[in-house]
Amino acid sequence: MTTVILQLICPDRPGLVSEISGWIASNHGNIRHADHHTDGEASVFLSRLEWDLEGFKLPRELIEQEVYKLANRLEGKAHLHFSDHFSRVAIFVGKQSHCLLDLLWRVNNNEMEMEVPLVISNHMDLKKICDSFNVDYKYIPVDEENKSFVEKKILKILLDYKIDLIVLAKYMQILSSEFIQLFPNIINIHHSFLPAFKGAKPYHRAWKRGVKLIGATAHYVTDKLDDGPIIDQTIVHVSHRDEVNDLIRKGRDTERLALARALRFHLRRQVMVYRGKTAVFE
Amino acid sequence: MTTVILQLICPDRPGLVSEISGWIASNHGNIRHADHHTDGEASVFLSRLEWDLEGFKLPRELIEQEVYKLANRLEGKAHLHFSDHFSRVAIFVGKQSHCLLDLLWRVNNNEMEMEVPLVISNHMDLKKICDSFNVDYKYIPVDEENKSFVEKKILKILLDYKIDLIVLAKYMQILSSEFIQLFPNIINIHHSFLPAFKGAKPYHRAWKRGVKLIGATAHYVTDKLDDGPIIDQTIVHVSHRDEVNDLIRKGRDTERLALARALRFHLRRQVMVYRGKTAVFE
Amino acid sequence: MTTVILQLICPDRPGLVSEISGWIASNHGNIRHADHHTDGEASVFLSRLEWDLEGFKLPRELIEQEVYKLANRLEGKAHLHFSDHFSRVAIFVGKQSHCLLDLLWRVNNNEMEMEVPLVISNHMDLKKICDSFNVDYKYIPVDEENKSFVEKKILKILLDYKIDLIVLAKYMQILSSEFIQLFPNIINIHHSFLPAFKGAKPYHRAWKRGVKLIGATAHYVTDKLDDGPIIDQTIVHVSHRDEVNDLIRKGRDTERLALARALRFHLRRQVMVYRGKTAVFE
Amino acid sequence: MTTVILQLICPDRPGLVSEISGWIASNHGNIRHADHHTDGEASVFLSRLEWDLEGFKLPRELIEQEVYKLANRLEGKAHLHFSDHFSRVAIFVGKQSHCLLDLLWRVNNNEMEMEVPLVISNHMDLKKICDSFNVDYKYIPVDEENKSFVEKKILKILLDYKIDLIVLAKYMQILSSEFIQLFPNIINIHHSFLPAFKGAKPYHRAWKRGVKLIGATAHYVTDKLDDGPIIDQTIVHVSHRDEVNDLIRKGRDTERLALARALRFHLRRQVMVYRGKTAVFE
Repeated sequence: MTTVILQLICPDRPGLVSEISGWIASNHGNIRHADHHTDGEASVFLSRLEWDLEGFKLPRELIEQEVYKLANRLEGKAHLHFSDHFSRVAIFVGKQSHCLLDLLWRVNNNEMEMEVPLVISNHMDLKKICDSFNVDYKYIPVDEENKSFVEKKILKILLDYKIDLIVLAKYMQILSSEFIQLFPNIINIHHSFLPAFKGAKPYHRAWKRGVKLIGATAHYVTDKLDDGPIIDQTIVHVSHRDEVNDLIRKGRDTERLALARALRFHLRRQVMVYRGKTAVFE
Repeated sequence: MTTVILQLICPDRPGLVSEISGWIASNHGNIRHADHHTDGEASVFLSRLEWDLEGFKLPRELIEQEVYKLANRLEGKAHLHFSDHFSRVAIFVGKQSHCLLDLLWRVNNNEMEMEVPLVISNHMDLKKICDSFNVDYKYIPVDEENKSFVEKKILKILLDYKIDLIVLAKYMQILSSEFIQLFPNIINIHHSFLPAFKGAKPYHRAWKRGVKLIGATAHYVTDKLDDGPIIDQTIVHVSHRDEVNDLIRKGRDTERLALARALRFHLRRQVMVYRGKTAVFE
Repeated sequence: MTTVILQLICPDRPGLVSEISGWIASNHGNIRHADHHTDGEASVFLSRLEWDLEGFKLPRELIEQEVYKLANRLEGKAHLHFSDHFSRVAIFVGKQSHCLLDLLWRVNNNEMEMEVPLVISNHMDLKKICDSFNVDYKYIPVDEENKSFVEKKILKILLDYKIDLIVLAKYMQILSSEFIQLFPNIINIHHSFLPAFKGAKPYHRAWKRGVKLIGATAHYVTDKLDDGPIIDQTIVHVSHRDEVNDLIRKGRDTERLALARALRFHLRRQVMVYRGKTAVFE
Repeated sequence: MTTVILQLICPDRPGLVSEISGWIASNHGNIRHADHHTDGEASVFLSRLEWDLEGFKLPRELIEQEVYKLANRLEGKAHLHFSDHFSRVAIFVGKQSHCLLDLLWRVNNNEMEMEVPLVISNHMDLKKICDSFNVDYKYIPVDEENKSFVEKKILKILLDYKIDLIVLAKYMQILSSEFIQLFPNIINIHHSFLPAFKGAKPYHRAWKRGVKLIGATAHYVTDKLDDGPIIDQTIVHVSHRDEVNDLIRKGRDTERLALARALRFHLRRQVMVYRGKTAVFE
């Protein structure tokens, strides 16, 4: 059954829960989930409400404008989502298959509320997997020279495919600030426990440092490398017996898990970003 | 700052969040936390709201009756708590010190919203610890013969000390159904990952079975042994190298953690019991 | 580089490590890994040694008989393995794809020292996946009436395919004692934290019980249901918000991880079984 | 029963396990544990052997010189330990009690093979705890001006008390390079998941960054801050609901666990340091 999901962020003051839930009740909405968080230091109020579309008095097409009115009254910002609207996601990959295969399998298995019409890569390695899932595969090589040109080409394709969200599933290329500004809805999986081992070759550096746990971090991409709001982190134990290759192998399991969890939270609109951080209403 | 915590359970229907938060707003309450859960199968609605007492229009002594009116209107049950009311807890122990010492240390460290005026034991071993924390220690031996008599004596003492809650911190005695009916507010720590290894000597049985993880379970006590609503569970890895004594040693760390976490949830009124299970609003 | 792996189990006495490693050294073997375990209670000694085949003085084809002589001298039992000998594995499945796909992907990714020439199922659902990995798929329906006949047919096929090991990757059928006696090398993934929730529908029962963690257990199959030696166990947190379907979904991630870890340990001959338990030399 | 523990590090070559275990066997030693590790890249061999003193042909007082001869033959370094020799440990603390109390409790509970005759602090806060455990408490204030003088005084006291090992249990002072050179046997607990958040106020910085897991790291102290060989790391989940104070509170549980685990490994001589990292033979 379709639900309406409202994410609202506004300055904190008494009566907010009542005002928002009152508006829903006055329209006969049956609330399934209601989560709120107050950041006391910043005096910011975050709210996520989910209610049944069926039985809601307002027609679907009028809800958005009423929500914006409500947000205006509260001097905040609202984001509205209907659970039957599946995001159109482009997955960017390099040569490694584990995250891509995992996500496509989850889509097929109805775990993820998204469609994946498009995969983009600077390598040909994963074309076969995409073929078997009937997903279009665009091979777009990139180097430092042609990056700006290539990114424009990619943006054009994203537009053609009506893409809502990019997932960097081990793409191993750094997108330019310009690209991120034009298409800011991007989730990345980084193969370390951020903020440890930002940047290149985190497993090699973790091995050299002799850590006893390695991790993976799924985060929104900002123009500062590996510094965007963290959505999920997972870890796995390692020991002196593990070579770099073992870290890479064990890391694959923890990467795909962190990415799938984070993406699921995002798609269900359980994530709200504020002050460079996330609230995840699990 | 003192907060008011309302736990409410009632049949599910549209408008509940609005009605409850509306009542708080109409009294100018500033909500700090609002958690709700709907058990769709049972059509039960659970709610926990926490708001500042300061600025709330209703005087403290009138809140309870208004809350009961609200609960009546919703055909549900309410429980009210003020955060400055510290529970008076009696800790029941046997010979093992780890859970007791951990809890007393947490109280001293202001981690737990409780007072511990009383420890009861059928052994003398832990008296010294209690002395050093200035906690009364009642040595009450028990055997199968005198159990009924002893339990009456204990109930009398609990009354004298105005105890709200019993914590069985490795007491190793089974309380009678009569006792539990008369004093139903009891949390136990069981040294296994329930429902595995109910009853006696769980570590010995876990070792014999060759499990690769052992656990601890903090739960409310009911008259069915180790079958009450589970509040928290923790686990720790074991291997073939671990003897039974290693399981016991590793278990101590995971026991005290599960117990402290569960007790903290309980004291902050983050736990609600329904259908033999708990909702824990973390 | 090919290594020789020796697993040896014998009665404990002084000098065993020296005797075994001395035999390897006398043949110029360069030991890569040496793990030993003594079960003090049972007075049993377990040893796993791995050394380079290159440079070893004994020709490959003579090692086995020398190893058996050594084991005889120690009144124990030895198992010899060469790392370049890949096990031929038949995966038995039902309708659920997650474990199968995960294993086939790991094989392709060179994570697992095995070949999978054959998948057997009582459903047609997963044929397409097997086709895309070029793995033979035998559709063999089974019911209570024809079970004995079907199992004979399966044993014949296993023989034809020269299968060394069966992996029950959510097969959901119980193999008969006769079958297990004739083909005892079987690993199963059970979707609970054994010994909790043996048998059918563990997630439903876990949900009903209100546990806060769910698990998966990979174990060798014996003729007592869900009672064989445990190789690996994994867990994942759940809360009151999780419906049975969420437990099933979360469970899939922890099932495939436990199965892959256990199978990898088995294939690298890191697992030794004794007294109904395993030693896993990680 | 007393055991002999030999830790040996030497250049890798064939025959080492045999040579070392052969020497033990030739003296009728009954090996309880034998762990080896080869760092292939560095071509370094690490070995830890533990055998019964009873029945060993060499008298206790002659073992050391024979062990050094063996190490010389292998061009390596050996460290010998008898399990009945308890290390004399000085615990350095500041104002926070959790690690100190936990360690003293474990000593009393016979979990740790050490004596703690001495606690040193630049604050008076924890004197009472030490009194109740009959541990000497030296109050030694320190500031930037008098640091060099104070450290000399401390070294003198360590000598008087025959201290083998210093444990920095939330001391919150940085020891000088000179001190560390003169007394290099120091274990520290750092309240972050190193190498993330080295230095001051890691919980504040973790909160600001919005991480989803926080950690603690027990490591040997070197003259480069928070950069010594890591022995153990533990983590705990946090969410947007956790304020800095919650991170500090949750952190205490994970700090004391990492420290106790690491210290136990150290005391049982399960840790070997090489190339700025540790091998921990669990």
